[in-house]
Amino acid sequence: MKVSCIREDLLNCIQIVQKAVPGRSTIPILMGILVETVGGNTLKLTGTDLKLGIESTLPCKVINDGSIVLPSHIFGELVRKLPDEEIIFTVEENNKILFECGKSRFNLASSPAEDYPSMPVIKEENFIHMSQNLFRNMIRQTNFAVSEDETKNVLTGQLLQIRGDSIRLVALDGFRIALVDGKGKNDKQNEIDVIIPGKTLNEFSKILSSRDSDEFSISLTENQILFDLGSTRVISRLIDGEYLKYEKVLPEDFKTTVIIDKNSLINSIDRAYLLAREEKGNNLIKMNIDGNNLVITSNSEAGNVYEQIEIEKEGDDQEIAFNSRYIMDALRSIDTEKVIMKFINNISPCIIKPFGLENQLNMVLPVMIN
Amino acid sequence: MKVSCIREDLLNCIQIVQKAVPGRSTIPILMGILVETVGGNTLKLTGTDLKLGIESTLPCKVINDGSIVLPSHIFGELVRKLPDEEIIFTVEENNKILFECGKSRFNLASSPAEDYPSMPVIKEENFIHMSQNLFRNMIRQTNFAVSEDETKNVLTGQLLQIRGDSIRLVALDGFRIALVDGKGKNDKQNEIDVIIPGKTLNEFSKILSSRDSDEFSISLTENQILFDLGSTRVISRLIDGEYLKYEKVLPEDFKTTVIIDKNSLINSIDRAYLLAREEKGNNLIKMNIDGNNLVITSNSEAGNVYEQIEIEKEGDDQEIAFNSRYIMDALRSIDTEKVIMKFINNISPCIIKPFGLENQLNMVLPVMIN
Repeated sequence: MKVSCIREDLLNCIQIVQKAVPGRSTIPILMGILVETVGGNTLKLTGTDLKLGIESTLPCKVINDGSIVLPSHIFGELVRKLPDEEIIFTVEENNKILFECGKSRFNLASSPAEDYPSMPVIKEENFIHMSQNLFRNMIRQTNFAVSEDETKNVLTGQLLQIRGDSIRLVALDGFRIALVDGKGKNDKQNEIDVIIPGKTLNEFSKILSSRDSDEFSISLTENQILFDLGSTRVISRLIDGEYLKYEKVLPEDFKTTVIIDKNSLINSIDRAYLLAREEKGNNLIKMNIDGNNLVITSNSEAGNVYEQIEIEKEGDDQEIAFNSRYIMDALRSIDTEKVIMKFINNISPCIIKPFGLENQLNMVLPVMIN
Repeated sequence: MKVSCIREDLLNCIQIVQKAVPGRSTIPILMGILVETVGGNTLKLTGTDLKLGIESTLPCKVINDGSIVLPSHIFGELVRKLPDEEIIFTVEENNKILFECGKSRFNLASSPAEDYPSMPVIKEENFIHMSQNLFRNMIRQTNFAVSEDETKNVLTGQLLQIRGDSIRLVALDGFRIALVDGKGKNDKQNEIDVIIPGKTLNEFSKILSSRDSDEFSISLTENQILFDLGSTRVISRLIDGEYLKYEKVLPEDFKTTVIIDKNSLINSIDRAYLLAREEKGNNLIKMNIDGNNLVITSNSEAGNVYEQIEIEKEGDDQEIAFNSRYIMDALRSIDTEKVIMKFINNISPCIIKPFGLENQLNMVLPVMIN
């Protein structure tokens, strides 16, 4: 194998597939990146932890075809530190690989490609098409609510719910729900409910473009999902199981609706949290909705805080307590200047939504206090 | 005690004195900041770990005089997160302190000022005056060579050597020496040799101005040094003992002088280090000076690297090995585009200096190899 390519293309490609390479593994070869020529002057890089796989291609000049597995971390660092010139790499005997770039010459130990696990073959139907930036934002607006508790199987994933062209992402961890709706183009106009691992979506969001016009496509098998970005393909296993019927727990019959400036609320909770967190495991803040004011208080041994914010209110006054982190996560996922909060009473979930938008909803359970 | 002040002034002052506040201490009150009115509408903040003390003042409106000790971390975070408005703080009963700022009200637990250790009284002679920015750079250009080994008493400090208006800072750790010369104004025109803890100088450099025109003054007692920046005063203990006679180990009679582009050398060593570090405790790089080329090589199980750089050379060829970190630290402390390196042989120290400047010198011992 002998290939030359542009440093920047290679670096970009390495950084994409590294999202799937585990930092540690009991299977050492998984900490490598598979590099192979795939005909037509194209080089393909692959990284996988066996659950998530990412392949990405770049243009190159193929002098001799071949394939090799390089240690991911050193390979990435090396290419990052090389001068911005053409890189030539040659596989020599004993799986040694020689890099030449400017006046630098590197020999790296590598492993034979035969030892690398093969990626699952997915029949590419690519029947759903949507904007990369839209999906990136949808992941950002929900991913924080995925359960970190590995024993909660389906809750470590996110529900992708497709109804014709409507695409919904849902995450919930037993204390809160985050959901967001978007539009795509579904060639089959069918109904789909699959659970994608939260970590996959988090890593995937990092390689999605922030340009609305860049699109990607989705293919599905019974237990795999394929995201096709053109030169990059992401394949993830799906989580087996039944997702919670989240629609049934979304509350109705609210007694109080509040419109509030999002940043004022974030800043006030941020200060209240400063004292709340002084006691371990205590993120508790109290909200008192009284007339046209929201008063936020928190207490700890270190002291106490009292924050007052003007609000627009319809309905009853309320006194209710929350884990401040859950409220903050919801507020930070919202992009509008104002938010709407809806309450029933101090033991029922509250709803937080962007003001003037109907495509996003957060539900947070209160903390019961005396 | 009741005082009002501008948030930004207070925050700035807190961040200065926090440089002396220990993150942890067996004496809890040292993790606090002493806040006291000192007459004439001035508020003084003090932080100390008993070795290093920093006092800083800010203008305020004093409604009632008084003093109190506030927990450093929460106090700093709180003021950082408050809106940019006037802050009023009032000491209430039981050492509770009330902050009012905009629509925020905070109560913080605090400690009585009587429990706070008093700072040593130093007769301010302020007989040495120099540019803050100059001294800041002098610290940056030497501090990295201070020994981190706490058992090496004097080597954990830096020698401040004053001869009339000439001011020299020296650091050495047994493997390398860094020294730099600057000019000040010495009212006494005397000779001084004192050892200042390296950590003090490092923290001190962070509060020095980067404007050449800002000056500061130095006062000395037998075991304390006072840096006077005007509204901020830094007091540190000195290290007792005799510093090494570093001048005696500076080599002469060089066989080889090399002029080299600093950034090319830094980039090449950086890449060589990438492989060298793969073996624990191995930072070894080899330099081969051959004709008008410097070749850098390093080896490890992961592979090997060969880097070639053009140089201007006078004298013999050389083959010599170094701990790459020592060479990198020296190179990064130099501000000129080119550096001069001088060698005797592969067991004698090498000298690294900025090209065209005579005020800075680095000496690095080689590593002996077969």
